[in-house]
Amino acid sequence: MFEVEQKHRVDDERSLLERLAERGVEIGPPVQQSDRYFAHPCRDFSQTDEALRIRTVGEKSFVTFKGPKIDKTTKTRREIELPLDTGDADGTKFGELLHELGFRQVAVVRKRRRSFHVSEKRHRVEGALDTVERVGEFAELELMSDQAGLDEAKRIISSLASELELGPVERRSYLEMLLENIAKLASN
Amino acid sequence: MFEVEQKHRVDDERSLLERLAERGVEIGPPVQQSDRYFAHPCRDFSQTDEALRIRTVGEKSFVTFKGPKIDKTTKTRREIELPLDTGDADGTKFGELLHELGFRQVAVVRKRRRSFHVSEKRHRVEGALDTVERVGEFAELELMSDQAGLDEAKRIISSLASELELGPVERRSYLEMLLENIAKLASN
Repeated sequence: MFEVEQKHRVDDERSLLERLAERGVEIGPPVQQSDRYFAHPCRDFSQTDEALRIRTVGEKSFVTFKGPKIDKTTKTRREIELPLDTGDADGTKFGELLHELGFRQVAVVRKRRRSFHVSEKRHRVEGALDTVERVGEFAELELMSDQAGLDEAKRIISSLASELELGPVERRSYLEMLLENIAKLASN
Repeated sequence: MFEVEQKHRVDDERSLLERLAERGVEIGPPVQQSDRYFAHPCRDFSQTDEALRIRTVGEKSFVTFKGPKIDKTTKTRREIELPLDTGDADGTKFGELLHELGFRQVAVVRKRRRSFHVSEKRHRVEGALDTVERVGEFAELELMSDQAGLDEAKRIISSLASELELGPVERRSYLEMLLENIAKLASN
């Protein structure tokens, strides 16, 4: 399966919430997410456009690998996500395993996420409003698709973004933006 | 925690079973284990004396990392083991993740294991009788220990091996022996 995803910076949250409300969309309760990103022992993920992270949400952690983006506008890419065992609720043991294998923790992205979903052309699009520490506020739209449905999925996401009057697409990941902001601070 | 482990080839299983029975040791039912071993993308595990594997036993899989052996006779080493989520019963998803990260499957060690435990000097030593496909029959003795108790754990394992009249210690792993046997076959 592929993840077709598009992200936009939100300058005026109130207007966006109103447009979502007009469509009858309900916004979920805020959830704290903590994403620990890792560097590969012999592959530069910033060059290969891949990512490996442990996400912790409440009492549950997941490990996620994201392959290179295969489309310019949407962030379409191969994704593998597996839940960690309940005995490793905060991903500490898995983090130790990665460390022993030569992976190094690069940064932690912390955000408050409010989820929603929108029905668009008989598809259920997953959405999120993210307030990301040291990065800012964003809206994300996402649709999972198999290879055959990729083009249609991209059209659906793109037309929904227009309807919601979202601004230009942000292609950088939260991790990239966070690292850029840290680099800017360091150069001041 | 460290795993203090010693392995011996068994030439006469009946005598060994008799000696165990004399001590009142009960042998557990046979269990099939399948161990998939992986090569690191940029580290030669056969040189660093490490190992990464997915073990599948019935409906449950575990990932295990074994650090370098730090003692000549016993196979004392750092070990990290984590159960995989029940949604990944045979470790397929975790295998895919390793593949995407550049790890390659090297070999599969299949064995029939019968477990037992022996009380020795107030410690509970875990034992196993293993019939390993294409490798042979072995007895393993194992004791988990923290850093401070390592020397005592080694003495306990070693004296138990003598009492059970086990032969010389086999330091090679099943994986090493399997790969050597395959290499011998290939060179014939």
